[in-house]
Amino acid sequence: MIRFHEKEPFSPIEHTYEVEDILYKGKSRFQDIMVVENLFFGRMLLLDNIVQVTERDEFFYHEMLTHVVMQAHPDPKRVVVIGGGDGGIVREILKHKSVEKIHFVEIDEAVINISRKFFPTVACGVDDPRVEIKIMDGAEFIKTAKNIDAVIVDSTDIIGFARSLFTKEFFTNVRNCLTDRGMFVSHTESLHFHKDVVVEMQERLKEVFPAVDLYTSAIATYPGSWWTFGVGALKPGVRKSVRPFEIETKLYDPEIHEQCFVTPGFYGKLMKRELKW
Amino acid sequence: MIRFHEKEPFSPIEHTYEVEDILYKGKSRFQDIMVVENLFFGRMLLLDNIVQVTERDEFFYHEMLTHVVMQAHPDPKRVVVIGGGDGGIVREILKHKSVEKIHFVEIDEAVINISRKFFPTVACGVDDPRVEIKIMDGAEFIKTAKNIDAVIVDSTDIIGFARSLFTKEFFTNVRNCLTDRGMFVSHTESLHFHKDVVVEMQERLKEVFPAVDLYTSAIATYPGSWWTFGVGALKPGVRKSVRPFEIETKLYDPEIHEQCFVTPGFYGKLMKRELKW
Repeated sequence: MIRFHEKEPFSPIEHTYEVEDILYKGKSRFQDIMVVENLFFGRMLLLDNIVQVTERDEFFYHEMLTHVVMQAHPDPKRVVVIGGGDGGIVREILKHKSVEKIHFVEIDEAVINISRKFFPTVACGVDDPRVEIKIMDGAEFIKTAKNIDAVIVDSTDIIGFARSLFTKEFFTNVRNCLTDRGMFVSHTESLHFHKDVVVEMQERLKEVFPAVDLYTSAIATYPGSWWTFGVGALKPGVRKSVRPFEIETKLYDPEIHEQCFVTPGFYGKLMKRELKW
Repeated sequence: MIRFHEKEPFSPIEHTYEVEDILYKGKSRFQDIMVVENLFFGRMLLLDNIVQVTERDEFFYHEMLTHVVMQAHPDPKRVVVIGGGDGGIVREILKHKSVEKIHFVEIDEAVINISRKFFPTVACGVDDPRVEIKIMDGAEFIKTAKNIDAVIVDSTDIIGFARSLFTKEFFTNVRNCLTDRGMFVSHTESLHFHKDVVVEMQERLKEVFPAVDLYTSAIATYPGSWWTFGVGALKPGVRKSVRPFEIETKLYDPEIHEQCFVTPGFYGKLMKRELKW
Protein backbone atom coordinates (compact mmCIF):
# COMPACT_ATOMS: atom_id res chain seq x y z
CA MET A 1 0.00 0.00 0.00
CA ILE A 2 1.37 3.42 -0.98
CA ARG A 3 0.72 6.16 1.55
CA PHE A 4 0.59 9.83 0.78
CA HIS A 5 1.71 12.22 3.48
CA GLU A 6 0.40 15.74 2.98
CA LYS A 7 2.78 18.64 3.58
CA GLU A 8 0.44 21.50 4.48
CA PRO A 9 2.75 24.24 5.71
CA PHE A 10 0.43 25.88 8.26
CA SER A 11 -1.30 22.85 9.72
CA PRO A 12 -0.49 21.44 13.16
CA ILE A 13 -2.09 18.17 12.03
CA GLU A 14 -0.49 16.28 9.17
CA HIS A 15 -2.82 14.22 7.02
CA THR A 16 -1.89 10.83 5.59
CA TYR A 17 -3.92 9.02 2.94
CA GLU A 18 -3.70 5.52 1.58
CA VAL A 19 -3.15 5.64 -2.16
CA GLU A 20 -4.39 2.85 -4.42
CA ASP A 21 -2.80 4.28 -7.51
CA ILE A 22 -0.89 7.30 -8.73
CA LEU A 23 -2.63 8.31 -11.94
CA TYR A 24 -0.51 11.32 -12.78
CA LYS A 25 2.65 12.91 -11.49
CA GLY A 26 4.22 15.92 -13.13
CA LYS A 27 5.55 19.41 -12.76
CA SER A 28 4.14 22.54 -14.35
CA ARG A 29 5.84 25.91 -14.57
CA PHE A 30 4.28 26.77 -11.20
CA GLN A 31 3.90 23.65 -9.11
CA ASP A 32 4.06 19.89 -8.68
CA ILE A 33 0.82 18.26 -9.80
CA MET A 34 -0.33 14.81 -8.79
CA VAL A 35 -3.53 12.82 -9.22
CA VAL A 36 -3.99 9.84 -6.91
CA GLU A 37 -6.76 7.36 -6.25
CA ASN A 38 -8.03 6.70 -2.71
CA LEU A 39 -10.72 4.16 -1.85
CA PHE A 40 -12.79 6.59 0.21
CA PHE A 41 -12.21 9.91 -1.56
CA GLY A 42 -11.91 8.66 -5.12
CA ARG A 43 -9.52 10.68 -7.25
CA MET A 44 -7.60 13.42 -5.48
CA LEU A 45 -5.81 16.40 -7.03
CA LEU A 46 -2.66 17.49 -5.20
CA LEU A 47 -0.75 20.70 -5.92
CA ASP A 48 2.67 20.93 -4.28
CA ASN A 49 1.60 17.92 -2.21
CA ILE A 50 -1.47 19.64 -0.77
CA VAL A 51 -4.93 18.20 -1.38
CA GLN A 52 -7.04 20.58 -3.47
CA VAL A 53 -9.91 18.46 -4.72
CA THR A 54 -11.31 15.02 -4.01
CA GLU A 55 -14.11 13.47 -6.03
CA ARG A 56 -15.96 12.57 -2.88
CA ASP A 57 -16.15 15.88 -1.10
CA GLU A 58 -15.36 18.59 -3.66
CA PHE A 59 -18.99 19.70 -3.67
CA PHE A 60 -18.80 20.98 -0.09
CA TYR A 61 -16.20 23.58 -0.98
CA HIS A 62 -17.35 24.35 -4.52
CA GLU A 63 -21.01 24.80 -3.62
CA MET A 64 -20.32 26.91 -0.55
CA LEU A 65 -17.77 29.15 -2.29
CA THR A 66 -20.05 29.74 -5.28
CA HIS A 67 -23.71 29.85 -4.37
CA VAL A 68 -23.73 32.21 -1.39
CA VAL A 69 -22.74 35.23 -3.48
CA MET A 70 -24.56 33.97 -6.59
CA GLN A 71 -27.87 33.63 -4.72
CA ALA A 72 -27.36 36.86 -2.77
CA HIS A 73 -26.95 38.82 -6.00
CA PRO A 74 -30.28 39.72 -7.63
CA ASP A 75 -29.13 38.98 -11.18
CA PRO A 76 -25.52 37.84 -11.66
CA LYS A 77 -24.57 37.96 -15.34
CA ARG A 78 -20.82 38.47 -15.55
CA VAL A 79 -18.57 36.53 -13.21
CA VAL A 80 -14.80 36.33 -12.77
CA VAL A 81 -13.29 33.13 -11.37
CA ILE A 82 -9.66 33.39 -10.33
CA GLY A 83 -7.89 30.10 -9.76
CA GLY A 84 -10.04 27.01 -9.46
CA GLY A 85 -8.32 25.37 -12.41
CA ASP A 86 -10.14 22.12 -11.67
CA GLY A 87 -13.33 23.77 -12.94
CA GLY A 88 -15.51 23.09 -9.90
CA ILE A 89 -16.45 26.73 -9.36
CA VAL A 90 -17.16 27.22 -13.07
CA ARG A 91 -19.46 24.19 -13.02
CA GLU A 92 -21.40 25.61 -10.07
CA ILE A 93 -21.68 29.12 -11.57
CA LEU A 94 -23.07 27.69 -14.82
CA LYS A 95 -26.04 26.28 -12.88
CA HIS A 96 -27.33 29.86 -12.60
CA LYS A 97 -29.34 30.69 -15.71
CA SER A 98 -28.73 34.42 -15.43
CA VAL A 99 -25.03 33.96 -16.16
CA GLU A 100 -23.90 35.19 -19.57
CA LYS A 101 -20.16 35.27 -19.20
CA ILE A 102 -17.49 33.70 -17.00
CA HIS A 103 -13.94 34.98 -17.16
CA PHE A 104 -12.05 31.95 -15.93
CA VAL A 105 -8.58 33.19 -15.00
CA GLU A 106 -6.13 30.47 -14.03
CA ILE A 107 -2.39 31.01 -13.84
CA ASP A 108 -1.52 27.36 -14.49
CA GLU A 109 -2.97 25.88 -17.67
CA ALA A 110 -1.69 22.45 -16.70
CA VAL A 111 -4.24 22.26 -13.86
CA ILE A 112 -7.11 22.81 -16.31
CA ASN A 113 -5.81 20.20 -18.73
CA ILE A 114 -5.20 17.60 -16.06
CA SER A 115 -8.66 18.23 -14.59
CA ARG A 116 -10.29 17.86 -18.02
CA LYS A 117 -8.66 14.44 -18.24
CA PHE A 118 -8.86 13.09 -14.68
CA PHE A 119 -11.81 14.99 -13.16
CA PRO A 120 -14.42 15.13 -15.93
CA THR A 121 -17.30 15.53 -13.44
CA VAL A 122 -15.58 18.58 -11.96
CA ALA A 123 -14.18 20.18 -15.12
CA CYS A 124 -17.33 19.55 -17.14
CA GLY A 125 -18.13 23.26 -17.58
CA VAL A 126 -14.79 24.70 -18.58
CA ASP A 127 -15.44 24.40 -22.32
CA ASP A 128 -18.94 25.86 -22.16
CA PRO A 129 -19.37 28.72 -24.66
CA ARG A 130 -20.12 31.15 -21.82
CA VAL A 131 -16.66 30.51 -20.37
CA GLU A 132 -13.62 32.43 -21.56
CA ILE A 133 -10.40 30.93 -20.27
CA LYS A 134 -7.49 33.30 -19.59
CA ILE A 135 -4.15 31.80 -18.63
CA MET A 136 -2.65 34.56 -16.53
CA ASP A 137 -2.24 35.95 -13.02
CA GLY A 138 -5.67 36.87 -11.70
CA ALA A 139 -4.22 39.91 -9.91
CA GLU A 140 -3.20 41.26 -13.32
CA PHE A 141 -6.48 40.39 -15.02
CA ILE A 142 -8.58 42.15 -12.41
CA LYS A 143 -6.84 45.50 -13.01
CA THR A 144 -8.71 46.02 -16.27
CA ALA A 145 -11.92 44.08 -15.60
CA LYS A 146 -15.20 46.04 -15.62
CA ASN A 147 -18.90 45.57 -14.82
CA ILE A 148 -18.45 42.32 -12.96
CA ASP A 149 -21.28 40.98 -10.79
CA ALA A 150 -19.24 38.46 -8.83
CA VAL A 151 -15.54 37.80 -8.35
CA ILE A 152 -14.82 34.37 -6.89
CA VAL A 153 -11.27 33.51 -5.87
CA ASP A 154 -10.55 29.80 -5.57
CA SER A 155 -6.86 29.85 -4.73
CA THR A 156 -4.41 27.53 -3.06
CA ASP A 157 -3.28 28.40 0.49
CA ILE A 158 -2.18 31.98 1.09
CA ILE A 159 1.47 31.27 0.28
CA GLY A 160 3.69 31.48 -2.80
CA PHE A 161 2.12 32.92 -5.93
CA ALA A 162 -1.38 32.91 -4.38
CA ARG A 163 -0.38 35.74 -2.05
CA SER A 164 -1.05 38.37 -4.73
CA LEU A 165 -4.76 37.49 -4.42
CA PHE A 166 -4.93 38.60 -0.79
CA THR A 167 -3.34 42.07 -0.91
CA LYS A 168 -5.05 45.40 -0.35
CA GLU A 169 -4.13 46.34 -3.91
CA PHE A 170 -5.90 43.27 -5.26
CA PHE A 171 -9.00 43.87 -3.15
CA THR A 172 -9.07 47.50 -4.36
CA ASN A 173 -8.92 46.40 -7.98
CA VAL A 174 -11.69 43.90 -7.33
CA ARG A 175 -13.88 46.58 -5.77
CA ASN A 176 -13.30 48.84 -8.76
CA CYS A 177 -14.42 46.20 -11.26
CA LEU A 178 -17.66 45.34 -9.44
CA THR A 179 -21.11 46.55 -10.40
CA ASP A 180 -23.21 48.31 -7.80
CA ARG A 181 -24.59 45.06 -6.35
CA GLY A 182 -21.45 43.07 -7.13
CA MET A 183 -19.80 40.78 -4.61
CA PHE A 184 -16.37 39.33 -4.00
CA VAL A 185 -15.69 36.07 -2.17
CA SER A 186 -12.54 34.14 -1.35
CA HIS A 187 -11.63 31.37 1.03
CA THR A 188 -9.59 32.76 3.94
CA GLU A 189 -8.20 29.57 5.54
CA SER A 190 -9.46 27.74 8.65
CA LEU A 191 -10.97 29.33 11.74
CA HIS A 192 -9.63 26.44 13.80
CA PHE A 193 -6.02 26.62 12.68
CA HIS A 194 -5.53 30.05 11.11
CA LYS A 195 -7.71 32.32 13.23
CA ASP A 196 -5.24 35.20 12.94
CA VAL A 197 -5.21 34.94 9.14
CA VAL A 198 -9.01 35.03 9.11
CA VAL A 199 -9.06 38.17 11.27
CA GLU A 200 -6.31 39.82 9.21
CA MET A 201 -8.19 39.15 5.97
CA GLN A 202 -11.43 40.52 7.41
CA GLU A 203 -9.58 43.67 8.51
CA ARG A 204 -7.96 44.06 5.09
CA LEU A 205 -11.29 43.59 3.31
CA LYS A 206 -12.81 46.27 5.56
CA GLU A 207 -10.15 48.74 4.47
CA VAL A 208 -11.47 48.39 0.94
CA PHE A 209 -15.12 47.27 0.90
CA PRO A 210 -18.05 49.04 2.58
CA ALA A 211 -19.72 45.70 3.36
CA VAL A 212 -17.66 42.76 4.63
CA ASP A 213 -18.81 39.43 6.02
CA LEU A 214 -17.59 35.99 7.01
CA TYR A 215 -19.13 32.57 6.63
CA THR A 216 -17.90 29.06 7.25
CA SER A 217 -18.32 25.47 6.21
CA ALA A 218 -16.72 22.28 7.49
CA ILE A 219 -14.40 20.77 4.87
CA ALA A 220 -12.90 17.51 6.08
CA THR A 221 -9.97 17.35 3.69
CA TYR A 222 -8.68 20.85 4.36
CA PRO A 223 -6.61 20.80 7.56
CA GLY A 224 -8.41 22.74 10.27
CA SER A 225 -11.69 21.81 8.62
CA TRP A 226 -13.71 24.81 9.81
CA TRP A 227 -13.14 26.67 6.57
CA THR A 228 -13.84 30.38 6.19
CA PHE A 229 -15.04 32.49 3.30
CA GLY A 230 -14.54 36.25 3.32
CA VAL A 231 -17.01 38.44 1.42
CA GLY A 232 -16.55 42.02 0.25
CA ALA A 233 -19.23 44.12 -1.44
CA LEU A 234 -20.30 47.70 -2.02
CA LYS A 235 -23.61 47.08 -0.26
CA PRO A 236 -24.69 44.68 2.48
CA GLY A 237 -27.02 41.83 1.64
CA VAL A 238 -24.90 38.71 1.27
CA ARG A 239 -26.65 36.95 4.18
CA LYS A 240 -29.85 36.33 2.24
CA SER A 241 -30.60 34.27 -0.84
CA VAL A 242 -32.74 36.75 -2.79
CA ARG A 243 -33.56 34.82 -5.93
CA PRO A 244 -35.75 31.71 -6.35
CA PHE A 245 -33.68 28.64 -5.54
CA GLU A 246 -33.68 26.85 -8.87
CA ILE A 247 -30.36 25.04 -8.95
CA GLU A 248 -29.47 21.46 -8.07
CA THR A 249 -27.08 21.08 -5.19
CA LYS A 250 -26.06 18.46 -2.65
CA LEU A 251 -25.36 20.71 0.31
CA TYR A 252 -26.19 24.36 -0.34
CA ASP A 253 -29.73 25.62 0.04
CA PRO A 254 -31.18 28.99 1.14
CA GLU A 255 -31.43 27.82 4.75
CA ILE A 256 -27.80 26.76 4.84
CA HIS A 257 -27.07 30.14 3.23
CA GLU A 258 -28.47 32.01 6.22
CA GLN A 259 -27.02 29.54 8.69
CA CYS A 260 -23.42 29.58 7.49
CA PHE A 261 -22.55 33.10 8.59
CA VAL A 262 -20.49 33.56 11.72
CA THR A 263 -22.86 34.80 14.42
CA PRO A 264 -22.53 38.44 15.53
CA GLY A 265 -21.53 37.54 19.09
CA PHE A 266 -18.79 35.16 18.07
CA TYR A 267 -17.66 37.42 15.24
CA GLY A 268 -17.44 40.42 17.55
CA LYS A 269 -15.26 38.56 20.04
CA LEU A 270 -13.14 37.18 17.22
CA MET A 271 -12.50 40.56 15.63
CA LYS A 272 -11.72 42.19 18.96
CA ARG A 273 -9.24 39.33 19.47
CA GLU A 274 -10.97 38.51 22.74
CA LEU A 275 -11.18 34.81 21.95
CA LYS A 276 -8.23 32.84 23.18
CA TRP A 277 -7.86 29.46 21.63
CA MET B 1 11.14 15.31 17.23
CA ILE B 2 8.75 12.56 18.29
CA ARG B 3 5.71 12.17 16.07
CA PHE B 4 2.43 10.67 17.09
CA HIS B 5 0.44 8.83 14.47
CA GLU B 6 -3.24 8.49 15.36
CA LYS B 7 -4.93 5.15 14.70
CA GLU B 8 -8.58 6.12 14.27
CA PRO B 9 -10.23 2.94 12.99
CA PHE B 10 -12.96 4.53 10.85
CA SER B 11 -11.12 7.48 9.39
CA PRO B 12 -9.89 7.61 5.80
CA ILE B 13 -7.48 10.36 6.87
CA GLU B 14 -4.79 9.51 9.38
CA HIS B 15 -3.66 12.35 11.61
CA THR B 16 -0.04 12.84 12.69
CA TYR B 17 1.05 15.24 15.41
CA GLU B 18 4.45 16.43 16.49
CA VAL B 19 4.97 15.61 20.13
CA GLU B 20 7.23 17.75 22.32
CA ASP B 21 6.97 15.49 25.31
CA ILE B 22 5.17 12.38 26.52
CA LEU B 23 3.88 13.30 29.98
CA TYR B 24 2.15 10.03 30.78
CA LYS B 25 1.88 6.61 29.24
CA GLY B 26 0.00 3.77 30.89
CA LYS B 27 -2.65 1.13 30.61
CA SER B 28 -5.88 0.95 32.58
CA ARG B 29 -8.20 -2.04 32.82
CA PHE B 30 -10.00 -0.72 29.75
CA GLN B 31 -7.57 1.11 27.51
CA ASP B 32 -4.17 2.59 26.78
CA ILE B 33 -3.92 6.11 28.15
CA MET B 34 -1.38 8.69 27.03
CA VAL B 35 -0.87 12.38 27.68
CA VAL B 36 1.37 14.23 25.25
CA GLU B 37 2.38 17.83 24.73
CA ASN B 38 2.05 19.51 21.32
CA LEU B 39 3.14 23.08 20.59
CA PHE B 40 -0.15 24.07 18.95
CA PHE B 41 -2.71 22.01 20.87
CA GLY B 42 -1.05 22.01 24.29
CA ARG B 43 -1.65 18.85 26.26
CA MET B 44 -3.52 16.08 24.48
CA LEU B 45 -5.29 13.08 26.02
CA LEU B 46 -5.17 9.90 23.93
CA LEU B 47 -7.19 6.78 24.66
CA ASP B 48 -6.18 3.71 22.67
CA ASN B 49 -4.12 6.11 20.51
CA ILE B 50 -7.12 8.25 19.57
CA VAL B 51 -7.19 11.95 20.45
CA GLN B 52 -9.99 12.68 22.94
CA VAL B 53 -9.13 16.09 24.34
CA THR B 54 -6.67 18.85 23.57
CA GLU B 55 -6.21 21.90 25.78
CA ARG B 56 -6.52 24.20 22.79
CA ASP B 57 -9.79 23.07 21.30
CA GLU B 58 -11.62 21.02 23.93
CA PHE B 59 -14.13 23.82 24.43
CA PHE B 60 -15.62 23.36 20.95
CA TYR B 61 -16.79 19.85 21.72
CA HIS B 62 -17.55 20.30 25.42
CA GLU B 63 -19.58 23.49 24.97
CA MET B 64 -21.53 22.19 22.01
CA LEU B 65 -22.31 18.82 23.59
CA THR B 66 -23.46 20.40 26.86
CA HIS B 67 -25.18 23.72 26.38
CA VAL B 68 -27.64 22.96 23.60
CA VAL B 69 -29.74 20.64 25.77
CA MET B 70 -29.01 22.58 28.96
CA GLN B 71 -30.28 25.85 27.47
CA ALA B 72 -33.20 24.16 25.70
CA HIS B 73 -34.45 22.71 29.00
CA PRO B 74 -36.48 25.20 31.07
CA ASP B 75 -34.91 24.23 34.39
CA PRO B 76 -32.33 21.41 34.39
CA LYS B 77 -31.65 20.24 37.94
CA ARG B 78 -30.51 16.62 37.75
CA VAL B 79 -28.08 15.60 35.03
CA VAL B 80 -26.38 12.32 34.15
CA VAL B 81 -23.03 12.41 32.36
CA ILE B 82 -21.88 9.11 30.93
CA GLY B 83 -18.23 8.95 29.94
CA GLY B 84 -16.37 12.22 29.66
CA GLY B 85 -13.84 11.14 32.28
CA ASP B 86 -11.75 14.22 31.52
CA GLY B 87 -14.42 16.30 33.26
CA GLY B 88 -15.04 18.79 30.44
CA ILE B 89 -18.78 18.13 30.29
CA VAL B 90 -19.11 18.28 34.08
CA ARG B 91 -17.32 21.66 34.07
CA GLU B 92 -19.75 23.02 31.47
CA ILE B 93 -22.87 21.68 33.24
CA LEU B 94 -21.80 23.29 36.51
CA LYS B 95 -21.97 26.70 34.82
CA HIS B 96 -25.78 26.36 34.95
CA LYS B 97 -27.02 27.62 38.32
CA SER B 98 -30.16 25.48 38.23
CA VAL B 99 -28.11 22.29 38.50
CA GLU B 100 -28.39 20.51 41.85
CA LYS B 101 -26.93 17.12 41.07
CA ILE B 102 -24.66 15.54 38.47
CA HIS B 103 -24.33 11.78 38.31
CA PHE B 104 -20.94 11.46 36.66
CA VAL B 105 -20.71 7.86 35.43
CA GLU B 106 -17.34 6.88 34.00
CA ILE B 107 -16.29 3.30 33.41
CA ASP B 108 -12.56 4.00 33.70
CA GLU B 109 -11.49 5.73 36.91
CA ALA B 110 -7.96 6.09 35.56
CA VAL B 111 -9.17 8.68 33.04
CA ILE B 112 -10.58 10.85 35.82
CA ASN B 113 -7.42 10.60 37.88
CA ILE B 114 -5.13 11.35 34.99
CA SER B 115 -7.29 14.31 33.98
CA ARG B 116 -7.24 15.69 37.53
CA LYS B 117 -3.45 15.66 37.32
CA PHE B 118 -2.71 16.68 33.73
CA PHE B 119 -5.82 18.64 32.68
CA PRO B 120 -6.74 20.74 35.73
CA THR B 121 -8.57 23.34 33.64
CA VAL B 122 -10.78 20.61 32.17
CA ALA B 123 -11.28 18.44 35.26
CA CYS B 124 -11.81 21.42 37.58
CA GLY B 125 -15.43 20.51 38.37
CA VAL B 126 -15.23 16.79 39.07
CA ASP B 127 -14.82 17.24 42.83
CA ASP B 128 -17.60 19.79 43.18
CA PRO B 129 -20.09 18.79 45.91
CA ARG B 130 -22.92 18.63 43.35
CA VAL B 131 -21.06 15.89 41.49
CA GLU B 132 -21.39 12.24 42.43
CA ILE B 133 -18.84 10.07 40.69
CA LYS B 134 -19.85 6.49 39.86
CA ILE B 135 -17.21 4.19 38.42
CA MET B 136 -19.31 1.82 36.36
CA ASP B 137 -20.79 1.11 32.94
CA GLY B 138 -23.20 3.92 32.09
CA ALA B 139 -25.53 1.46 30.37
CA GLU B 140 -25.95 -0.29 33.73
CA PHE B 141 -26.35 2.92 35.72
CA ILE B 142 -29.10 4.25 33.51
CA LYS B 143 -31.33 1.20 34.14
CA THR B 144 -32.21 2.43 37.63
CA ALA B 145 -31.87 6.21 37.19
CA LYS B 146 -35.00 8.34 37.72
CA ASN B 147 -36.21 11.92 37.32
CA ILE B 148 -33.28 13.06 35.18
CA ASP B 149 -33.49 16.34 33.26
CA ALA B 150 -30.60 15.70 30.91
CA VAL B 151 -28.51 12.69 29.96
CA ILE B 152 -25.28 13.61 28.19
CA VAL B 153 -23.15 10.84 26.71
CA ASP B 154 -19.53 11.78 26.05
CA SER B 155 -18.14 8.50 24.82
CA THR B 156 -15.22 7.39 22.72
CA ASP B 157 -15.92 6.26 19.14
CA ILE B 158 -18.76 3.78 18.66
CA ILE B 159 -16.52 0.73 19.02
CA GLY B 160 -15.44 -1.56 21.83
CA PHE B 161 -17.05 -1.02 25.22
CA ALA B 162 -18.66 2.26 24.09
CA ARG B 163 -21.05 0.32 21.85
CA SER B 164 -23.41 -0.37 24.76
CA LEU B 165 -24.20 3.37 24.81
CA PHE B 166 -25.68 3.32 21.32
CA THR B 167 -28.14 0.39 21.49
CA LYS B 168 -31.91 0.56 21.37
CA GLU B 169 -31.98 -0.92 24.87
CA PHE B 170 -29.79 1.87 26.19
CA PHE B 171 -31.86 4.57 24.49
CA THR B 172 -35.03 3.01 25.96
CA ASN B 173 -33.58 3.08 29.47
CA VAL B 174 -32.53 6.69 28.94
CA ARG B 175 -36.03 7.62 27.84
CA ASN B 176 -37.51 5.94 30.91
CA CYS B 177 -35.31 7.89 33.32
CA LEU B 178 -36.07 11.31 31.81
CA THR B 179 -38.48 13.84 33.24
CA ASP B 180 -41.25 15.16 31.02
CA ARG B 181 -39.05 17.91 29.52
CA GLY B 182 -35.86 15.86 29.79
CA MET B 183 -33.39 15.53 26.94
CA PHE B 184 -30.73 13.10 25.85
CA VAL B 185 -27.71 14.01 23.74
CA SER B 186 -24.75 12.03 22.44
CA HIS B 187 -22.14 12.56 19.78
CA THR B 188 -22.87 10.37 16.75
CA GLU B 189 -19.59 10.58 14.78
CA SER B 190 -18.81 12.71 11.71
CA LEU B 191 -21.22 13.61 8.95
CA HIS B 192 -18.28 13.79 6.53
CA PHE B 193 -16.82 10.37 7.26
CA HIS B 194 -19.53 8.35 9.00
CA LYS B 195 -22.73 9.51 7.31
CA ASP B 196 -24.26 6.04 7.52
CA VAL B 197 -23.59 5.85 11.27
CA VAL B 198 -25.26 9.24 11.72
CA VAL B 199 -28.34 8.11 9.82
CA GLU B 200 -28.47 4.78 11.65
CA MET B 201 -28.28 6.53 15.04
CA GLN B 202 -31.03 8.98 14.08
CA GLU B 203 -33.21 6.05 13.00
CA ARG B 204 -32.51 4.19 16.22
CA LEU B 205 -33.29 7.25 18.34
CA LYS B 206 -36.58 7.65 16.47
CA GLU B 207 -37.60 4.12 17.42
CA VAL B 208 -37.43 5.20 21.05
CA PHE B 209 -37.93 8.96 21.41
CA PRO B 210 -40.95 10.97 20.20
CA ALA B 211 -38.69 13.95 19.39
CA VAL B 212 -35.33 13.45 17.69
CA ASP B 213 -32.97 16.00 16.20
CA LEU B 214 -29.45 16.43 14.84
CA TYR B 215 -26.96 19.25 15.15
CA THR B 216 -23.34 19.67 14.15
CA SER B 217 -20.17 21.50 14.97
CA ALA B 218 -16.76 21.50 13.30
CA ILE B 219 -14.14 19.85 15.52
CA ALA B 220 -10.70 19.97 13.90
CA THR B 221 -9.08 17.22 15.94
CA TYR B 222 -11.79 14.62 15.37
CA PRO B 223 -11.24 13.02 11.97
CA GLY B 224 -14.06 13.99 9.64
CA SER B 225 -14.36 17.24 11.57
CA TRP B 226 -18.07 17.88 10.84
CA TRP B 227 -19.13 16.35 14.12
CA THR B 228 -22.74 15.37 14.83
CA PHE B 229 -24.82 15.35 17.99
CA GLY B 230 -28.01 13.30 18.18
CA VAL B 231 -30.80 14.46 20.49
CA GLY B 232 -33.71 12.43 21.85
CA ALA B 233 -36.54 13.82 23.97
CA LEU B 234 -40.15 13.24 24.92
CA LYS B 235 -41.16 16.61 23.51
CA PRO B 236 -39.74 18.80 20.76
CA GLY B 237 -38.06 22.06 21.65
CA VAL B 238 -34.30 21.46 21.55
CA ARG B 239 -33.78 23.98 18.74
CA LYS B 240 -34.32 26.99 20.97
CA SER B 241 -32.43 28.32 23.98
CA VAL B 242 -35.35 29.06 26.33
CA ARG B 243 -33.60 30.39 29.41
CA PRO B 244 -31.64 33.65 29.84
CA PHE B 245 -28.10 33.15 28.59
CA GLU B 246 -26.10 33.67 31.76
CA ILE B 247 -23.08 31.41 31.34
CA GLU B 248 -19.58 32.21 30.11
CA THR B 249 -18.57 30.44 26.94
CA LYS B 250 -16.06 30.82 24.13
CA LEU B 251 -18.13 29.45 21.26
CA TYR B 252 -21.70 28.59 22.28
CA ASP B 253 -24.36 31.27 22.39
CA PRO B 254 -28.12 31.22 21.72
CA GLU B 255 -27.58 32.20 18.08
CA ILE B 256 -25.12 29.39 17.50
CA HIS B 257 -27.69 27.17 19.25
CA GLU B 258 -30.30 27.87 16.58
CA GLN B 259 -27.74 27.79 13.80
CA CYS B 260 -26.14 24.45 14.57
CA PHE B 261 -29.08 22.24 13.63
CA VAL B 262 -29.01 20.40 10.34
CA THR B 263 -31.41 22.21 8.01
CA PRO B 264 -34.69 20.45 7.14
CA GLY B 265 -33.86 20.19 3.44
CA PHE B 266 -30.46 18.67 3.96
CA TYR B 267 -31.71 16.46 6.81
CA GLY B 268 -34.57 15.17 4.70
CA LYS B 269 -32.28 14.17 1.85
CA LEU B 270 -29.84 12.65 4.31
CA MET B 271 -32.45 10.51 6.05
CA LYS B 272 -33.96 9.36 2.77
CA ARG B 273 -30.41 8.39 1.79
CA GLU B 274 -30.75 10.52 -1.31
CA LEU B 275 -27.41 12.22 -0.76
CA LYS B 276 -24.55 10.46 -2.45
CA TRP B 277 -21.15 11.43 -1.19
